[in-house]
Amino acid sequence: MRGLTESNLTDAVVSQVKADNPRLQQLMESFIRHLHSFVREVEPTEAEWWAAIQFLTKTGHTCTDERQEFILFSDMLGVTSLVDFINHRFSEGVTETTVTGPFHRVSNIEYENGANIANGPEWERGEHTLVRGRVLDLTGQPIAGAKVDIWQSDDLGFYDVQDGEQPEINLRGLFTTDENGAYWFRTVKPSSYPVPTDGPVGKMLEAIGRHPMRPAHIHCMVAAPGFKRLVTHVYVEGDEYLASDSAFAVKESLVVDFVKNDSAEDAARYGFPGPFYEIEFDFVMQPA
Amino acid sequence: MRGLTESNLTDAVVSQVKADNPRLQQLMESFIRHLHSFVREVEPTEAEWWAAIQFLTKTGHTCTDERQEFILFSDMLGVTSLVDFINHRFSEGVTETTVTGPFHRVSNIEYENGANIANGPEWERGEHTLVRGRVLDLTGQPIAGAKVDIWQSDDLGFYDVQDGEQPEINLRGLFTTDENGAYWFRTVKPSSYPVPTDGPVGKMLEAIGRHPMRPAHIHCMVAAPGFKRLVTHVYVEGDEYLASDSAFAVKESLVVDFVKNDSAEDAARYGFPGPFYEIEFDFVMQPA
Repeated sequence: MRGLTESNLTDAVVSQVKADNPRLQQLMESFIRHLHSFVREVEPTEAEWWAAIQFLTKTGHTCTDERQEFILFSDMLGVTSLVDFINHRFSEGVTETTVTGPFHRVSNIEYENGANIANGPEWERGEHTLVRGRVLDLTGQPIAGAKVDIWQSDDLGFYDVQDGEQPEINLRGLFTTDENGAYWFRTVKPSSYPVPTDGPVGKMLEAIGRHPMRPAHIHCMVAAPGFKRLVTHVYVEGDEYLASDSAFAVKESLVVDFVKNDSAEDAARYGFPGPFYEIEFDFVMQPA
Repeated sequence: MRGLTESNLTDAVVSQVKADNPRLQQLMESFIRHLHSFVREVEPTEAEWWAAIQFLTKTGHTCTDERQEFILFSDMLGVTSLVDFINHRFSEGVTETTVTGPFHRVSNIEYENGANIANGPEWERGEHTLVRGRVLDLTGQPIAGAKVDIWQSDDLGFYDVQDGEQPEINLRGLFTTDENGAYWFRTVKPSSYPVPTDGPVGKMLEAIGRHPMRPAHIHCMVAAPGFKRLVTHVYVEGDEYLASDSAFAVKESLVVDFVKNDSAEDAARYGFPGPFYEIEFDFVMQPA
């Protein structure tokens, strides 16, 4: 340790980690080795190292109670998606998960099936949509009483918390499946939108030639006793950003066709003033 | 990219990096691959991932104009030392470098050789020390007119900027080598000291069973026309933290014996009131 050299330095650093907690020991040893491997591979100049320090500092300074720039950094480098994959290795046939994102609210409005969650100006502007499906177990049996928690952006790509023109709680709803495991509700088709670009992560995206867009999606968190909680998105087929989601969170099985329904009878049955889009998406749950 | 899987995710993320700047492209590709390798190796739970996000956020929030907690993080993981090694692969025989640390001041007080830089209460308490040596080129020829910039902690381990009891600028001095390449000055023996432990990095050190101590040292930055700037420390032989420096910055060649000198004649010649310590350290410079 007194005789540190460029080649023995990494082992010297690792040898000083003596955590009581064996998991912390493993995490720190691995982190140090990978971080040193990165530094040894790219051989940063002192100016580059200082630029990295400044980036991390600015990212920290951008974090507030309302904004988490380090999570955005994790999202934009695919790390959040990777952690999601690692923690949700569910059985074949279970609905694929994806990232939670920053816009979930812990307590949502409870609605009856069929309710309209688009209660702001988007209802006048947007494309009316009926979302429906069932919550099922792996054998295809319906799960009655499952909770389906929904949140989404409006037709312009804004969530209620970002938009003074929407009601305070909007485009969110907590539904309960009926005896057939079914849920259904009315809304508007969501829009693609950019992640926040006014911070250091936005500057990074620009510097590396990447756009900040997320393809249009509806967030879903499904819970039922005896099953693991399922957090995912349903994506709008045809969105131009499906192949380059800035958060690397698109799985093919989550992309759904929004099908036009011109039937006046169906519109009247579901409470639409005219033609609407329809999507159907079933959630298959992982046993706990 | 629509069909993301756990196995193709890393390549998908890398494929989206399209920087105009080829060096930035290389840095980001390498960073993403090493970061994903780390995550794949340790398979963090979502709670662990969140703990990492919180650690980074708190580290950012601890950074101010006066304090750089991310540099401290880099120091404590040996990254600063590794970057120093990589950027100073000097010729055999050149003085080894080490990290600059946070306490250098850009404009230092210019002194004549022989001056005393210990102008605070440490002069009454501390162990008086004569520091001398020469600045040389690789053939052993003296370099006259070289600038030797010195800064150090006091006998209690505090730098002037941390200590209201020291004069505003203290234990710092900029010396110029004479026609024989020699410099010399009076000071007190520095003390080992802890890095700041009241932030997230201090908590990390505690959690992984590490002490925060740096062994006693005098910082030196040497500059001369035609040579590369040399930044290093001179360490005090016998310090208990030489083998476990929290910043991983000790090189064997930088550890120097502080030799007691009891000669009344020498004390009178150099301006000490009584016995003092003596160290001799030559700087061998890398041609530019």
